[in-house]
Amino acid sequence: MNFSSKLLESAVAEFAKLPGVGQKTALRLVLHLLNQDKEEVAQFSSAISRLRNEIQFCGTCHNISDSATCEICSSPKRDHSIICVVEDTRDVMAIENTNQYNGVYHVLGGLISPMDGVGPSDLQVDTLVERLKEGGAKEIIFALSATMEGDTTIFYLHKRLKQFSINISTIARGIAFGGELEYVDEITLGRSIVTRVPYQHSLS
Amino acid sequence: MNFSSKLLESAVAEFAKLPGVGQKTALRLVLHLLNQDKEEVAQFSSAISRLRNEIQFCGTCHNISDSATCEICSSPKRDHSIICVVEDTRDVMAIENTNQYNGVYHVLGGLISPMDGVGPSDLQVDTLVERLKEGGAKEIIFALSATMEGDTTIFYLHKRLKQFSINISTIARGIAFGGELEYVDEITLGRSIVTRVPYQHSLS
Repeated sequence: MNFSSKLLESAVAEFAKLPGVGQKTALRLVLHLLNQDKEEVAQFSSAISRLRNEIQFCGTCHNISDSATCEICSSPKRDHSIICVVEDTRDVMAIENTNQYNGVYHVLGGLISPMDGVGPSDLQVDTLVERLKEGGAKEIIFALSATMEGDTTIFYLHKRLKQFSINISTIARGIAFGGELEYVDEITLGRSIVTRVPYQHSLS
Repeated sequence: MNFSSKLLESAVAEFAKLPGVGQKTALRLVLHLLNQDKEEVAQFSSAISRLRNEIQFCGTCHNISDSATCEICSSPKRDHSIICVVEDTRDVMAIENTNQYNGVYHVLGGLISPMDGVGPSDLQVDTLVERLKEGGAKEIIFALSATMEGDTTIFYLHKRLKQFSINISTIARGIAFGGELEYVDEITLGRSIVTRVPYQHSLS
């Protein structure tokens, strides 16, 4: 592209580094910001730099937090004997939105992926082991994506954690609520037949 | 959404104000920035605030510029007697990319749109009239979108500019190069038959 201004060009280049944002979208976003009030843009810019400079991670569960211990880990209302292991903060948000879980979390910060060069040492695995050594936990729930990376991570964590006498479970897999059988993929359907559960009236 | 951090929440809210960016996309972009180096994020943030605070508009054509007169308006190689009237800087970039135009520009900064409350006084119309009063211009080319707003703007500008003895033209409309007749919309096809041009071997 043929920019009439170096300032414009560098702002577009910065936006185009974001995932899923190309040159044309970046230009559209930048021209939108140019049409806003100076205060609005200053607020946008400072929200980003404050986020990166001031954000903290909870010392217990490693979730994004504004303080050294997050609200969930410091709440006396939560059941601290159940730890749900998730990939990142988005999963914590998704599970919190269901209102079905009252335990605490452990955020790994990623999944084991040899293809992307992510090993256990890049994740919050040792801190999870330390947390269990301290005692108090009765159950670990793996709530990881049903992908190869998720399965690899569960396999590895299970090996590391079986030394502790705690229950280890994974979230249930099967056909989604409201899903039509006809459109379910073969692997999910096959596994959901193999792992069928006794009929319970309240859950049907 | 249930954010674990106010800093995260405000950064997501700022991103979600951008056109075409919803809450989920905003969260994805913000988490991407959180994974970047502090310097990278500082650069992103400063590119935006510098853009808004330091950008200038060319005093002649009103295009975005780093100086009081843009490169095109100050170039002796350009033909200053032909002025191409466009909506915004994106159109200047698009026309420059064709390498087919050697005149100068006049950026209106929008199109007349009564529905959106945009009238001639919100656009660089008076400055265009002043520019023509100064003399030197031989031709005005309207390169505006083929929409109702574009046509309204051309109609209004033509009324204001016909007092000057200069040629007024619009860019050609018709079927696009490489376009298959079968898929061309009826209005374009109909108009392109009515406004047919003599066959010229070099342009066929």
